[in-house]
Amino acid sequence: MPKQPSSELIPKRVVDRIAVYYRYLQNMVDQGIDRISSKELSNMIGITASQLRQDLHFFGSFGQQGFGYRTEELLYRIKKLIGLDLRQSMVLIGAGNLGSAIASYESFVNKGFDLIGIFDSNPEVIGTAINGLLVQDVRELESFLQRNTVNIGIITAPASPAQGIADILSAGGVNAIWNYAPVKLIVPKHVTVEHIHLTDSLVSLVFQANIKKRGGISENS
Amino acid sequence: MPKQPSSELIPKRVVDRIAVYYRYLQNMVDQGIDRISSKELSNMIGITASQLRQDLHFFGSFGQQGFGYRTEELLYRIKKLIGLDLRQSMVLIGAGNLGSAIASYESFVNKGFDLIGIFDSNPEVIGTAINGLLVQDVRELESFLQRNTVNIGIITAPASPAQGIADILSAGGVNAIWNYAPVKLIVPKHVTVEHIHLTDSLVSLVFQANIKKRGGISENS
Repeated sequence: MPKQPSSELIPKRVVDRIAVYYRYLQNMVDQGIDRISSKELSNMIGITASQLRQDLHFFGSFGQQGFGYRTEELLYRIKKLIGLDLRQSMVLIGAGNLGSAIASYESFVNKGFDLIGIFDSNPEVIGTAINGLLVQDVRELESFLQRNTVNIGIITAPASPAQGIADILSAGGVNAIWNYAPVKLIVPKHVTVEHIHLTDSLVSLVFQANIKKRGGISENS
Repeated sequence: MPKQPSSELIPKRVVDRIAVYYRYLQNMVDQGIDRISSKELSNMIGITASQLRQDLHFFGSFGQQGFGYRTEELLYRIKKLIGLDLRQSMVLIGAGNLGSAIASYESFVNKGFDLIGIFDSNPEVIGTAINGLLVQDVRELESFLQRNTVNIGIITAPASPAQGIADILSAGGVNAIWNYAPVKLIVPKHVTVEHIHLTDSLVSLVFQANIKKRGGISENS
């Protein structure tokens, strides 16, 4: 029977962890570190050696006993696995404070992401430049998507217009949405949404700090 | 022998997951949903029933067979476990685009977080108001921390001043730092840092979208 790969085969937490491997490996290659042991790698990511072995299964096994991994080769395989061997073009909708901050984020370019369009509905913002890119009228988004191949749509607009923007993006061939708007988006099945919940990590921070203060988790805590 | 609880007892991924439980349960309580089955809860969070049981162990076991969980009770216990039964006071350093966006984030107040001070080094920004709060000179941060109890420091400054800011925060009694600056901070042992890597979730999004497009992970992908 032929193998039937499915997205179920790789849990979301492993997908998320592979993004972290990617960041660490990119840093190591940038710093000229050409080799890493599996122990160093698992310590760095904060997982066990057995989890690391399971994760690396997805990249194909190619480490050598007692030698470790060549960082460049591992990075290359991870990039290919993720799909970042091809550059990703992005549009951003909502050029307020958050949108401006994200549009100016320099790490994108090094990591394989190209922001090619910024859109807003505010006449005072349309026509201004952010990081060298003119803000366009959001009514132009649909025709922009007809003229350009866009992989990722970033929604930094408020909650109320977010669903309408997601509809235009989905209809325009965008199959990945990075959503900062505080609303759950309904999208066609072929579209993936990653919803950013900023407070999750803040809550996690409070919890970690309190665990430290209490000297651990106790039954009464 | 007395039980020796330690922070090792609860892995980071469980800490992070508990932040997600908190968000979902707060939403349910806000919507007036008063009961949830363990199956619904595990589906919602995207984990298995057995993982859920392990997680709930940290809150003490109190679900009833065939009845599920009272959302308000579960929320209360999670809040207490996290340490969010007490309000958290925060200062933010770096009132640029990202800092302004975070300072204006309305969800903080509902979730138990109070922003009580905003600081910047730019004379043009000092004295302006963000969300009703005056931006103060960062040189005032040290004395502000002497006069006020601050639980969390949010660093939205650029990389170069970030370590100096972290030093002032740590010396001033802040034991939790939410760091958006693209630099690894060195802090005393009692201080916890949660470093935000925005691109991690973008990379994860690309990966998820590509898994969908390919119809799964295959050995050759």
